[in-house]
Amino acid sequence: MPLTKAEVARLRSLQEKKHRETLGLFVVEGEKVVGELLSAGFPFTELYATEAWTGVAPATRVSDAEMARISHYPTPSSVLAVGQLARRPLAPGAIDRGLTLALDGIQDPGNVGTLLRIADWFAFDRVVLSPDCADLFSQKVINASMGSFARVVAHTAPLAETLAGCTAPVLGCDLHGDDVHALPSLQDAVVVIGSEGRGLSAAVAARVTRRVTIPKFGGAESLNAAVAAAIVCDNLRRTAPR
Amino acid sequence: MPLTKAEVARLRSLQEKKHRETLGLFVVEGEKVVGELLSAGFPFTELYATEAWTGVAPATRVSDAEMARISHYPTPSSVLAVGQLARRPLAPGAIDRGLTLALDGIQDPGNVGTLLRIADWFAFDRVVLSPDCADLFSQKVINASMGSFARVVAHTAPLAETLAGCTAPVLGCDLHGDDVHALPSLQDAVVVIGSEGRGLSAAVAARVTRRVTIPKFGGAESLNAAVAAAIVCDNLRRTAPR
Repeated sequence: MPLTKAEVARLRSLQEKKHRETLGLFVVEGEKVVGELLSAGFPFTELYATEAWTGVAPATRVSDAEMARISHYPTPSSVLAVGQLARRPLAPGAIDRGLTLALDGIQDPGNVGTLLRIADWFAFDRVVLSPDCADLFSQKVINASMGSFARVVAHTAPLAETLAGCTAPVLGCDLHGDDVHALPSLQDAVVVIGSEGRGLSAAVAARVTRRVTIPKFGGAESLNAAVAAAIVCDNLRRTAPR
Repeated sequence: MPLTKAEVARLRSLQEKKHRETLGLFVVEGEKVVGELLSAGFPFTELYATEAWTGVAPATRVSDAEMARISHYPTPSSVLAVGQLARRPLAPGAIDRGLTLALDGIQDPGNVGTLLRIADWFAFDRVVLSPDCADLFSQKVINASMGSFARVVAHTAPLAETLAGCTAPVLGCDLHGDDVHALPSLQDAVVVIGSEGRGLSAAVAARVTRRVTIPKFGGAESLNAAVAAAIVCDNLRRTAPR
């Protein structure tokens, strides 16, 4: 049964964040990413696939022409999935326990996805995104996360307020902090990462309780946000009690 | 004096690698990146700037219309620089001494630029790119390197052959290697990094003498190439004699 005009319009509208928010839905496309998320057990609510799709999950069969109409890309893939956009509330005091990666205004969706992947690799308990980060439910973020989107517990929350009462150490990268190689063993910690261009916002920087520095040996002025985060996470895990 | 048609054509032709190779020249555009490279002392051979440019280096003044014609971008900036494309030969035995970052088929120019920046931060003595990496002299690579392009000594060379007689340990990331946190102190080492999608080529993998693993705690299947490289470099530097 062909898709109705209204169905096509609804699926296409999910390209825009405001429509995703209104409908409470988001879209992911592509054999690789949809496959990764299905493998990770992500509960998609709708799945549309052309004949070319090799996946096994039950899907609504669509023609190539229909896929071209609902796809957000100029070159559509064989599968398009729709999921529920669930913003998880952050319980008060949640960041006091375990390891949290907090992203402050990271606007590049590729960086946000890479940071989700890093949080997943190092088994951080959660990621908190400030509201001005790239949208967690955009395709670019989900693609760059390489499946970690389905495994990482991510929240969107105003960062400075969230950090205000935090009892765990709040680590921020800085050029004049303590050597990250000499970090003591921390079971609970929040690692805050600022945007490439602007660094941490003043309100978040004011909540950092421990400035850490990645020792620099050469001429580069900085490392990119995801690279710096990964080095801090690796050092945290290296010294953590197992 | 307005640019001649031939000058415009020559500058525009440098968008393509084959013309860059033929003319032995490459182009960089944008206030930020040109400024970074000028600050790093990069010896550009030609500089074209509109009235809007705030730099101080001597430049050929061009109109906005001329800049639009010579620029490689739909939205031109106020400055376009031309430099000599110098492929540095790699002396036999060069990689036996000091720290080398070797890139095996990294095709994403953003990743190559980020890796140059990492090599710069950790003061690696050189970077060796396999011939199938993204072109070192493309604007995307130079932009992503954030000025490190001017500081890092980079060579293009066939990797497997280059590694064949290497007396320094050749480190490659692997899921079943030695814990990178337990690396011994190494004054001389080559770190080889494979492409995101395909990993190391078989010929290069065969030259790896020490497999290292970044301990994984969560569900992600892998880290991105630049992130993995940065963690290995940080651990190498952490344990290196100072």
